[in-house]
Amino acid sequence: MTDFPDRIDIAEEGPREGFQIEPGPIATDAKIALIDALSATGLRTIQVASFVAPRLVPGWSDAEAVVGGFAPRPGVAYTALWFNQAGLDRALAFRDRLHLVGSISLSASEAFSRKNLNRDREGQLAAMRRQTQAHQAAGVPVSRVLVMAAFGCNYAGDIAPATVLTTIADGLTIAAEAGAVIRDLSLADTMGWATPARIERLIGTVRDRWPDLRLSLHLHDTRGLGIANAHAGLRLGVARFDSAVGGLGGCPFAGQPGAPGNIATEELVFLCDELGIATGVDLAALIEAGRLAERIVGHRLPSTLLRSGALAPLRRAA
Amino acid sequence: MTDFPDRIDIAEEGPREGFQIEPGPIATDAKIALIDALSATGLRTIQVASFVAPRLVPGWSDAEAVVGGFAPRPGVAYTALWFNQAGLDRALAFRDRLHLVGSISLSASEAFSRKNLNRDREGQLAAMRRQTQAHQAAGVPVSRVLVMAAFGCNYAGDIAPATVLTTIADGLTIAAEAGAVIRDLSLADTMGWATPARIERLIGTVRDRWPDLRLSLHLHDTRGLGIANAHAGLRLGVARFDSAVGGLGGCPFAGQPGAPGNIATEELVFLCDELGIATGVDLAALIEAGRLAERIVGHRLPSTLLRSGALAPLRRAA
Repeated sequence: MTDFPDRIDIAEEGPREGFQIEPGPIATDAKIALIDALSATGLRTIQVASFVAPRLVPGWSDAEAVVGGFAPRPGVAYTALWFNQAGLDRALAFRDRLHLVGSISLSASEAFSRKNLNRDREGQLAAMRRQTQAHQAAGVPVSRVLVMAAFGCNYAGDIAPATVLTTIADGLTIAAEAGAVIRDLSLADTMGWATPARIERLIGTVRDRWPDLRLSLHLHDTRGLGIANAHAGLRLGVARFDSAVGGLGGCPFAGQPGAPGNIATEELVFLCDELGIATGVDLAALIEAGRLAERIVGHRLPSTLLRSGALAPLRRAA
Repeated sequence: MTDFPDRIDIAEEGPREGFQIEPGPIATDAKIALIDALSATGLRTIQVASFVAPRLVPGWSDAEAVVGGFAPRPGVAYTALWFNQAGLDRALAFRDRLHLVGSISLSASEAFSRKNLNRDREGQLAAMRRQTQAHQAAGVPVSRVLVMAAFGCNYAGDIAPATVLTTIADGLTIAAEAGAVIRDLSLADTMGWATPARIERLIGTVRDRWPDLRLSLHLHDTRGLGIANAHAGLRLGVARFDSAVGGLGGCPFAGQPGAPGNIATEELVFLCDELGIATGVDLAALIEAGRLAERIVGHRLPSTLLRSGALAPLRRAA
């Protein structure tokens, strides 16, 4: 049985993900040029910057200049990322340009949380309680729970669906205590442990418990299964995906430099186009944006579709 | 409904595919070293050389030295490729080392056949009749029909399943006329047009007509859907796949240099390991063979699993 959606929503994370991990400094103008190119593709959500400490992520020390510099297009929600009060405050300065939504982000793996965030489970829950209160105080709606390492963890191994359920329940409790209404649940394969079978199992388990939450998948292509996992999600009716043009980004946890990060937006759009699922995105324009991203970073990106191109032009010529 | 096989057979084509397309000359010793490394992984079928005119494919002018030089391992079938009587004669000189099986190879796209082989449909059928007779005369069994461009063609566009059925029927007729018994049917996505949906449709159509043929998929990752397509085949019980270690090879028809060719064997094995489908292959040894292949060709290969590694070592360490 398949339950493909009629259309999906894509949250483009390429600018934020990509320019965070690239070693060389990327010019502010180049970042803006990519955001503007993406704005013209039909994408409706684009994450444009990360408000993190420049000391930790020098690649985003120009977040204000980027967010102040791109040309907003009506109908496109521009989002940003932050991890603490300082980051939230910086984002709040751009309420007129940014679509600000708060998430409750929890790792299903405590080992990952310790290694990556230097927090144990209780510390993570406490941080999210504080952040949720800060969002509410600032008038930023908190409508999403995000579970990192939902399929497995390089430090903890396989993650059981029951552990993910507990993590989601924790997030919903934090939201309820603060009076926030959670509508979206994002399951993130942070370190590339998902397989189609694990996608099916976890989605089935989560839906049984919370049938009304809208599911979103954040998939990495760390081990080559990214698009197969996306397809497994589509089969089950998942209609919200994060992705990055060109496969911009990378995985700092993969153990080897050069491991791919997010699935490539154009490969997801291509798959949907071929399956008859609407995305609202012009694939040809998106591929051009991906090629622009390659020129900006100065090296080949993981997306194979950037090499070969889509089928529509070949069909027209045939 | 899924019908995953308990185990699959993989025909490794990396050495033949890869060393054919690499621009630089690859030393004969290096080719042999890769074949010997692959022999130790548990793979049971390895295509080791192409007996083609050195004028056309200089990369295989040392086919005899390679085939005479590797260390055959009991239980492994070493295969080779040829396209005409001269190639067959060269292969026959190695009957003691090679597992010689003849195929009837037809393109479902006449346009591809014209462009790639300079033959129209009738010319292609006539060539296969002659080749089948030559195989029979030499005592080489002809047990396989292979359909190129079975999912689509850069020159003809989408290929209808009905066209593939006609092509298969042509191949079976040629075999029957020569008294050959066809057991295997290989469907090749020569130019990267397959999607999971097209895999499902074509396999269903073919099985309805010829339920007793053993199906094999030859998938290219030209547009990023290779492993998703393999997964679609696995779901339907397809138990035979061609692939290339590291994703060695490439697609000369993709329009851009650097487009990936065959799916990477280690990504297929990884998927099967994670799904509980036996391959007989030691994934760690195969990844090492893929890294050897990268050192031999002197550049990064398309496989992402070579970057990130498999999950088993992480599970053990967790």
